[in-house]
Amino acid sequence: MIVIGERINGMFGDVKNAIKERNPEVIRDLACRQEECGASMLDINVGPIAKNEKADAMKWLIEAAQEASKLTICIDTPSFEVMQSSIAAAKNPVVINSSPADPEKLEKYIGLAKEYNAGLILLTMDKSGIPSDVDGRVALGAQGMSQWIEAGLAPEDLYVDPIILPVNCNQQQPLQVMETIRQLKEFSPTSHFNLGLSNLSQGTDKRSLLSRIYLAMCMPAGLDTAIMDPMDKELMDAMITCEMLMNKQIYCDSFLEAYYNK
Amino acid sequence: MIVIGERINGMFGDVKNAIKERNPEVIRDLACRQEECGASMLDINVGPIAKNEKADAMKWLIEAAQEASKLTICIDTPSFEVMQSSIAAAKNPVVINSSPADPEKLEKYIGLAKEYNAGLILLTMDKSGIPSDVDGRVALGAQGMSQWIEAGLAPEDLYVDPIILPVNCNQQQPLQVMETIRQLKEFSPTSHFNLGLSNLSQGTDKRSLLSRIYLAMCMPAGLDTAIMDPMDKELMDAMITCEMLMNKQIYCDSFLEAYYNK
Repeated sequence: MIVIGERINGMFGDVKNAIKERNPEVIRDLACRQEECGASMLDINVGPIAKNEKADAMKWLIEAAQEASKLTICIDTPSFEVMQSSIAAAKNPVVINSSPADPEKLEKYIGLAKEYNAGLILLTMDKSGIPSDVDGRVALGAQGMSQWIEAGLAPEDLYVDPIILPVNCNQQQPLQVMETIRQLKEFSPTSHFNLGLSNLSQGTDKRSLLSRIYLAMCMPAGLDTAIMDPMDKELMDAMITCEMLMNKQIYCDSFLEAYYNK
Repeated sequence: MIVIGERINGMFGDVKNAIKERNPEVIRDLACRQEECGASMLDINVGPIAKNEKADAMKWLIEAAQEASKLTICIDTPSFEVMQSSIAAAKNPVVINSSPADPEKLEKYIGLAKEYNAGLILLTMDKSGIPSDVDGRVALGAQGMSQWIEAGLAPEDLYVDPIILPVNCNQQQPLQVMETIRQLKEFSPTSHFNLGLSNLSQGTDKRSLLSRIYLAMCMPAGLDTAIMDPMDKELMDAMITCEMLMNKQIYCDSFLEAYYNK
């Protein structure tokens, strides 16, 4: 499982203040702690700030994180302009987070991925929004995957994300998203399948419980990447246990400790 | 999810002693507590005692449990003779636990199920043992299911159990068992699919964690019945959360409490 640490995000108060005060210590600390807890990549998101400040804030966040960690940076912005202007600041390996599946938009992101030798998170949505059924999500995912591969890029550098929404808004979609992953995994077994896991439990009372149970439901379907909180020990333990039960970690009585110490 | 309470089993010291002393209070208490915690059936197993005492002990256990609960009794013995002699003691509805898939043995259990209007747990094993691959388990399950249905019995009274073994003995089989359930569920969508969940974690250090993660992995595949400990609150919470994420329980902020109070 590829854990993309979610904590360097301006929607969290500590990061929001750090951006405002340009205090790199907070960001470096979050980068280190997430890496220690098992993150393989660091998501970087400026959060809700003024539009004209986003590009500078993103560049500053990327630089602060890189001072503390060599992990892959996952630049998280819906704005192509912010992506384009900040990706050059990345010295670590990069994953672009994210592109919609509209062919003309995806083409621009594919160009950027080629230029910077970056991976890409592809969302199963387009100008009409997120399809409300499995077939619609699969169609957009498959179309985007084909476009990526036809552009000569490696399927293993693509991270397809069927977009999990809060369960308190729509209770049908957790299973739909799981089934979308299963079908797309058959379409391209070597690509990655990602979720912004914490979205599922936005606004609910039992956030960690929902995250860890949904993770265990989706991993056997093909989920192998998640933007999540690696500092949530119960969530990480659930993930490690699921990997062990899927025979991807060797069982020993101390299999949890073995994972953290490897 | 149909929860079959596992605690009235002579492998537990309190039940072993209660059988020896013929102390019904211990059994009544376990019946009540499991029902309060969410069990829909009570498994009854005399555990490791002398062969010539098994039938009497089983009858006594069934009667003690029935004094406290109206739940379905799941008579758990590999001996056809013990099953035959104790099933008449059951006034509550009964599920026979269990029959192997050998056609001639299953025929005898089918006869008993018809005579007592009982359900049946069918194990995907025969005289050669438990198949080591998915195909072998599916073949035995499908053959047994066909035999049950051809005998004129209702598919919803059959509980197919692909047999989960301790993960510290064989790490390949958790995914194989999950896949067996998925394939057999397609074969007969209205039958039930059961596991003796605690077997998975026998001899391991993190029993509840393994049980609840594996439950969340298997429920989307079609697992809808488990012999498990309903007094393990974390396990029950995992099950309820999985049902909610599968849209089988309505979400509200207090969905866990709502389940227990329904």
